[in-house]
Amino acid sequence: MALDKNWFVEVAPEAGFAQALKIRGKLHEEQTPYQKLEIFDTEDWGNLMTLDGLVMLTARDNFVYHEMMSHPPVMTHPAPRRVAIVGGGDCGTLREVLRHPAIEKVFQIEIDEAVTRAAERYFPELTEANDDPRAELLFGDAIEWMKRQEPGSLDVVIVDSTDPVGPAVGLFQRAFYADCLQALGTTGVLAQQSESPLLHLDTLKAMRAEMKAAGFEQLRTYQFCQPTYPSGWWSATLAGIGVDLRDFREQDARELPFTGHYYSADMHRGSMAMPPFIERALAEG
Amino acid sequence: MALDKNWFVEVAPEAGFAQALKIRGKLHEEQTPYQKLEIFDTEDWGNLMTLDGLVMLTARDNFVYHEMMSHPPVMTHPAPRRVAIVGGGDCGTLREVLRHPAIEKVFQIEIDEAVTRAAERYFPELTEANDDPRAELLFGDAIEWMKRQEPGSLDVVIVDSTDPVGPAVGLFQRAFYADCLQALGTTGVLAQQSESPLLHLDTLKAMRAEMKAAGFEQLRTYQFCQPTYPSGWWSATLAGIGVDLRDFREQDARELPFTGHYYSADMHRGSMAMPPFIERALAEG
Repeated sequence: MALDKNWFVEVAPEAGFAQALKIRGKLHEEQTPYQKLEIFDTEDWGNLMTLDGLVMLTARDNFVYHEMMSHPPVMTHPAPRRVAIVGGGDCGTLREVLRHPAIEKVFQIEIDEAVTRAAERYFPELTEANDDPRAELLFGDAIEWMKRQEPGSLDVVIVDSTDPVGPAVGLFQRAFYADCLQALGTTGVLAQQSESPLLHLDTLKAMRAEMKAAGFEQLRTYQFCQPTYPSGWWSATLAGIGVDLRDFREQDARELPFTGHYYSADMHRGSMAMPPFIERALAEG
Repeated sequence: MALDKNWFVEVAPEAGFAQALKIRGKLHEEQTPYQKLEIFDTEDWGNLMTLDGLVMLTARDNFVYHEMMSHPPVMTHPAPRRVAIVGGGDCGTLREVLRHPAIEKVFQIEIDEAVTRAAERYFPELTEANDDPRAELLFGDAIEWMKRQEPGSLDVVIVDSTDPVGPAVGLFQRAFYADCLQALGTTGVLAQQSESPLLHLDTLKAMRAEMKAAGFEQLRTYQFCQPTYPSGWWSATLAGIGVDLRDFREQDARELPFTGHYYSADMHRGSMAMPPFIERALAEG
């Protein structure tokens, strides 16, 4: 069957794979200083945001990604208080981090303010915590911002960025990780989206090698299903200093002061189990 | 971007979702007595088999499905010896079941012999265990076959069928489950593919209700990422009699006599963790 103009199609040419969502129309189109931003109204997935033709999120399935980017690092750190979100302009990760009462301060450093403005209009549920007094929304270059942070001033860094091409490429490199490590000090957790473990295993391996080279002691990659990202199979990676990534605050996770849609203590542990073929590939270096 | 004739596209119209694989050409096309069977040569996924225009398997990602359909039920039964595979004509599940030395007999009851003949030719790696003396390949109606089995003559039943439309619809109904239960006797495990937990939650609930009505004591749904099935997020469900589905032979799973590509003891446990939104939906009935 052919897909007509009523479908938004994203092709992953490197994988001979494409996925598509049926749309009713385009709600917004804008060339920002950084990228082309579009919003579509889909038949079954609510609003859809794309950047440079790639799916960033839909209203229907973003909960998986946002919960899995925020709660695992926060629940792995023994006493998280200060968090930085790098990218994350749709504010969904910010909302999830702010659900934790122990968090005292969250910086969100997004390079493209247009993404946040579009989220406020088309995904208001994700920006509902933006007025929280603990949240500080900054628009600028997170790579430069991270260099200026006091040593040990952050507990958790969440890199919620686009793929390692274009504006985000520096966020997958050793120099940036070294600055994150300095800001984390002696005890900290960095979490970063790390692409499809089936389609992009080489990217995942390269990223982990950069984290290791920057001085992180431990790494742990975990997985989840993300239907509207290529292959529907996605991963994130924790990098830690002074924290045992094999464990997490499980008892606290069983008594969360909010109800997860995807995240729970069992899902935290379950998502950390990785298929043997991936474990073998990552053990090779 | 539009997808031209060099793409095989599968649309899930109920979900406004489609996925596509880039193809080099069609290797085989056949109208069997039951369905239209096609084999494509894809750019990045190896050979692709479709039935009535729906993806059944690709050479690249079928390992997830086949390992997750076979090892969880076999490792959940305390002492599995006799197994029936309902459907499963590509023989991938059969191959995985036969990896367990304790298994003495496996019946595969596939209604459409053409599927197995095509697998022998286009997916020879999946049919490599077909000559195992423990394997008995039968071609016919599994619903009728199941009625004729002696009470307690099977330990594990694996329903590896197409979706609950067309020839497979009876495999999702109470009468069939009751016949399976009788064949399992006092101690047994049934495993069945149960669609996308995101897109087809109602189907999953209906299927579980039928299993329960047939007399199964316990049910347990588990999940895995399956890139070439709609949404990339798939599930299977265990139904048990006289077996605690919350547990499995974990020590044995840590000492498997073969190396899994996807399956391991940790993956078994991890896959059984279900997101809270699904747990809540299933608890409602």
